Amino acid sequence: MSNVIFNKLLILGVGLIGGSLALAAKHAGVVSEVRGWSRRQVTLQRALELGVVDSVEHDLQRALQDVDCVVVATPSQFAAKLLVDVVARVPKQVVITDVASVKGNLAAALRDAYKTMPANVVLGHPIAGSEKSGVEAARASLFDGQRVILTPDPHTAADALQAIESLWRACGASVHEMSTDAHDRVFGMTSHLPHVLAYALVDFLAAQPAHEQIFDYSGAGFRDFTRIAGSDPRMWQEIVQANKEALLIAIEGYENKLAEIKAAMQHDRGDELQTLFDRAKAARDAHST
Amino acid sequence: MSNVIFNKLLILGVGLIGGSLALAAKHAGVVSEVRGWSRRQVTLQRALELGVVDSVEHDLQRALQDVDCVVVATPSQFAAKLLVDVVARVPKQVVITDVASVKGNLAAALRDAYKTMPANVVLGHPIAGSEKSGVEAARASLFDGQRVILTPDPHTAADALQAIESLWRACGASVHEMSTDAHDRVFGMTSHLPHVLAYALVDFLAAQPAHEQIFDYSGAGFRDFTRIAGSDPRMWQEIVQANKEALLIAIEGYENKLAEIKAAMQHDRGDELQTLFDRAKAARDAHST
Repeated sequence: MSNVIFNKLLILGVGLIGGSLALAAKHAGVVSEVRGWSRRQVTLQRALELGVVDSVEHDLQRALQDVDCVVVATPSQFAAKLLVDVVARVPKQVVITDVASVKGNLAAALRDAYKTMPANVVLGHPIAGSEKSGVEAARASLFDGQRVILTPDPHTAADALQAIESLWRACGASVHEMSTDAHDRVFGMTSHLPHVLAYALVDFLAAQPAHEQIFDYSGAGFRDFTRIAGSDPRMWQEIVQANKEALLIAIEGYENKLAEIKAAMQHDRGDELQTLFDRAKAARDAHST
Repeated sequence: MSNVIFNKLLILGVGLIGGSLALAAKHAGVVSEVRGWSRRQVTLQRALELGVVDSVEHDLQRALQDVDCVVVATPSQFAAKLLVDVVARVPKQVVITDVASVKGNLAAALRDAYKTMPANVVLGHPIAGSEKSGVEAARASLFDGQRVILTPDPHTAADALQAIESLWRACGASVHEMSTDAHDRVFGMTSHLPHVLAYALVDFLAAQPAHEQIFDYSGAGFRDFTRIAGSDPRMWQEIVQANKEALLIAIEGYENKLAEIKAAMQHDRGDELQTLFDRAKAARDAHST
């Protein structure tokens, strides 16, 4: 009995995530052939040399020929346009998915183009990454024990959803479902907001006249706190823009919390500060096991 | 030739920092005897049992008898009152110092009480700590290779300053001088501000209806970012209040930076976001070696 879920899998954008999915799916024996497409010829060449994909194709129309599943794994700024484009170019039985960190903007682009979410599209977000990026960093084990969020729409075909679930499970991931709104709210708060806050702090301090001294006297706590400000600025600018609405709400909620702390300081309400810090420590301790 | 800097050293508050200073000074042979004083009898008993101090005294007046140096190492909320009190109770040749994280409030309390900074007071801040606290965590090596900031005033006696410098150097620390204002500004930005921001984020997220899901999906970046929100809430409430003025200015500057990011998001100025994130990453990378 064959384990094959998709005969021909096409990866659009063979970077860390797309490349790792290609390797993991081949390693699990759930695809017969993986084809790679990229805007950059050099990436395709490298993906082929490294054996990450079985074949490459620089022309999108030719790349889409005869495939059973298309994974949009490009940087998020290209994902919306590509998804819309691919839906128009492939037969309805081809399953289309993606790996972007924000889901609402992609769902909106698809609904704008097709009135409802196309039944063969299953939007997804593997919670996996690495400080490294690019096809050179791809590895079959990247999704081992990691989580993948799928955000199916009422119009999503059950068999398309099930096939993408099976694909991720075969790659070692556990699969969870969420609405696009819930996904973007949760990751807006737990991931995108902290990145914005860390970038903001470092940029604020770097603009101080005494910035050399400030950084010189920063300790381990500061280094931990600002580690995520070392993340890829282009990727994060794209994520921030893609999740603009949920993130602006999160930033405003955070600003209100800061205002609460400021007011307690201004009026010397030490008990209130203590209660707030106690509550924060308890919440963090409860979730940091 | 004797290395002794102070014959009798009195530590007020024998916790992690006070206890470690006692051990380090004895180990270096720069004090003949260390006496411990604490508000809590049980702390004194433990300090004696552990050999952190040579003798203990629960009565402040008796503790101050015949000492050559007094180190105020209590929690910061008691430090101002104790410093003022000790200055009044000891002869002018006794050198007085402290180890608190904020210096301006102590300098102000002393100036309020004595018009000018008493010549025998040398305010200081050892940049050392540990997740542990209390006399049990004290160790002679705590200050090895660490930095100590002294914030001398124009009225500070040169020999008092030199004696405290020698004491810290004998304990393995490097000694740096700063004005109290510069000290509180620098540490307000590099240490106190990040703590406030981390407490604010965790408390904000804990108040969300979906907080279980939010914390459940938080990753390594979030854990690093919020690690300092696991710090001792009482100690941090005291530091925040003690450095209120400099910290409020820092928070307001930070709020302006967040507003700048929000405006760039609202007006889809991706280039501006990119520039800001690039600048932050560059500053962080330059200082994180």
